[in-house]
Amino acid sequence: MKLLCSQSDLSTNLSLVSRAVPSRPNHPVLANILLQADAETNQVSLTAFDLSLGIRTSFSAEVWQGGAIAIPAKLLVDITSRLPEGEITLDDEASEASTGEGLIVTLTPKSGYYQLRAMSAEDFPELPIIEDAEPINLTAAALIEGLRGSLFATSADETKQVLTGVHLSVKQDTLEFGATDGHRLAVVETTNESPLAGGGQLEVTVPSKALRELERMLGHNAAAEDAIALYLDQGQVVFEWQNQRLTSRTLEGQYPAYRQLIPRQFERQVTVDRKQFLSTLERIAVLADQKNNIVKLTIDHAAQELTLSCEAQEMGSGRESIPAEISGEDIEIAFNVKYLMEGLKALPSSEIQMHINQNLTPVIFTPLGGLKMTYLAMPVQMRS
Amino acid sequence: MKLLCSQSDLSTNLSLVSRAVPSRPNHPVLANILLQADAETNQVSLTAFDLSLGIRTSFSAEVWQGGAIAIPAKLLVDITSRLPEGEITLDDEASEASTGEGLIVTLTPKSGYYQLRAMSAEDFPELPIIEDAEPINLTAAALIEGLRGSLFATSADETKQVLTGVHLSVKQDTLEFGATDGHRLAVVETTNESPLAGGGQLEVTVPSKALRELERMLGHNAAAEDAIALYLDQGQVVFEWQNQRLTSRTLEGQYPAYRQLIPRQFERQVTVDRKQFLSTLERIAVLADQKNNIVKLTIDHAAQELTLSCEAQEMGSGRESIPAEISGEDIEIAFNVKYLMEGLKALPSSEIQMHINQNLTPVIFTPLGGLKMTYLAMPVQMRS
Repeated sequence: MKLLCSQSDLSTNLSLVSRAVPSRPNHPVLANILLQADAETNQVSLTAFDLSLGIRTSFSAEVWQGGAIAIPAKLLVDITSRLPEGEITLDDEASEASTGEGLIVTLTPKSGYYQLRAMSAEDFPELPIIEDAEPINLTAAALIEGLRGSLFATSADETKQVLTGVHLSVKQDTLEFGATDGHRLAVVETTNESPLAGGGQLEVTVPSKALRELERMLGHNAAAEDAIALYLDQGQVVFEWQNQRLTSRTLEGQYPAYRQLIPRQFERQVTVDRKQFLSTLERIAVLADQKNNIVKLTIDHAAQELTLSCEAQEMGSGRESIPAEISGEDIEIAFNVKYLMEGLKALPSSEIQMHINQNLTPVIFTPLGGLKMTYLAMPVQMRS
Repeated sequence: MKLLCSQSDLSTNLSLVSRAVPSRPNHPVLANILLQADAETNQVSLTAFDLSLGIRTSFSAEVWQGGAIAIPAKLLVDITSRLPEGEITLDDEASEASTGEGLIVTLTPKSGYYQLRAMSAEDFPELPIIEDAEPINLTAAALIEGLRGSLFATSADETKQVLTGVHLSVKQDTLEFGATDGHRLAVVETTNESPLAGGGQLEVTVPSKALRELERMLGHNAAAEDAIALYLDQGQVVFEWQNQRLTSRTLEGQYPAYRQLIPRQFERQVTVDRKQFLSTLERIAVLADQKNNIVKLTIDHAAQELTLSCEAQEMGSGRESIPAEISGEDIEIAFNVKYLMEGLKALPSSEIQMHINQNLTPVIFTPLGGLKMTYLAMPVQMRS
């Protein structure tokens, strides 16, 4: 293997794949990044895989001699990122010279050289592939919207199993993202650009760690209109676009039938400016943090005003009102301020609607116009 | 007490003083910020004090009724920083209404209000003052240079007592900053703009925590040419400029007589570009980190080249050379890469000089031109 590439190409692609390098690898080879160089296409691909999440990217280089080798990820990333811009050669020629001492990769920037002990590419596990599957096609923008509107609502508690992932449901011409941690629920519906031929329905739950990496990669490396192909299979999911691929195992277990939790009819409706609601909540939260995180919402139909308040008796109290468009009777209703803020942050529109029945039944938050997102939060008992 | 001020003035000044609020206060009142409003001058001053570090700032406001009160720091800072720009009134009128339930401060932004339980200003300890002392006068730029060139070399180990501080020595017309953690030494000499009348000499050791806050405040709130007055006394030091004051207790104990550690004559001298030296070291450090943090410098007089190298046998090796102006014979010398990098980062010039005798005697680093700074690092034994 011998190739010439630019420091910026190598460093950028290394930083993408290195997120899939496990911090405590089960097997030594997983602490490496697999480098594959193809002399015919002049393409170099980099792969990292923690046996659950796998990331592969590729870029153009001058490949003088094809080959593959597994290089220690941390050293390679740290040295490459600190090199000045310019050309770098990479080769494993020093390996032959050594007598049975194993593989060596030599990194040669403009001045000096670095030699790293490497491992055989054959020891590196294959990235899972899904064969004979028809892809679901999404734009990068739709995928990012789906992730942004659901990931925040997953559970961070590893013992909650399926709830630590996002549930993807492929229907005829939609792809639905669902996430709940048992206290609140977020659902986003996006368009599947290539409707399923069979008319069947596919469902998988994907670990949030993999989807957070996907979100990050798309944010850095995809234009809004780029097409992303999504391959689903039992136990495995693959996202592919341009020169990038992300694979992940799926989570086992039955995902909760969340659709039935969402009421269809409501007695009250409140339309309010999202940013104003959020920034007011952030101030009231300073006091709520001191007590039990509970904020009280007072809906005043006559004044067309939504009042946010908190009484943290030992510390103090706060109260602010914002204008709102209100239908239905006056009501007081209390929430955990954290769930309210996280939902408001994720809702994608400038105005949002709250749909309310009673003060202890589920409340639904939806954006006004655009994306189909539903956020459900359970009110809490008021204590005074 | 009743006043009207702008959100940005209040928030900016709160964030300055809040750094002196202890995270675990010995006495409840220390978790507060003392607010003093003067109706004659229309000035509001804020004070925080952890009994070692004290910070006071003041700003203009419309003071309708003078007075003083101690307000819970965290709540006041967090709410104020989240308020939109605009006018805020602050008053303690709600206190009278309550029957013996203590003091209450009401914060009234444009919409809504916040009430916080406060404490009496009388419970708040007085900030130390140094009376009848003649100040030492420095420009902000000189003070920042002195701090920047010394603070990094202090010890982070609390058991090392005086070594956790910076030693300030006032001489006739200079102010010297000295810092050592026992492994390396940094000394910066700056000009005292108002030479001492008596011709005496003053020395104190100031905790690095206070000086880091001072550095931060000067960076945010002082122009380079601003005059800073420095008052020294046994046990106490005060820095004063514009509307800001920072006080700190001093550290007790004899500071090491570091001047005698600095050699006066050298057998070798190496002049090198500081940034190039530093960025090369950062790459070699990636390998040195894997082993014992030792980097080897090879000084080649014939080639006029400085070579940096590291052999981390199990992991790999690296070697880079940079041009240098060298006088004296060839030598190989090894350093802890961390001490070398930290010194190079703090040296203020584009070119620096290394002054070397033998490979196990102290090496001195100085900037070329400008500031008078001396950095001493001890070489280490080479192991191969």
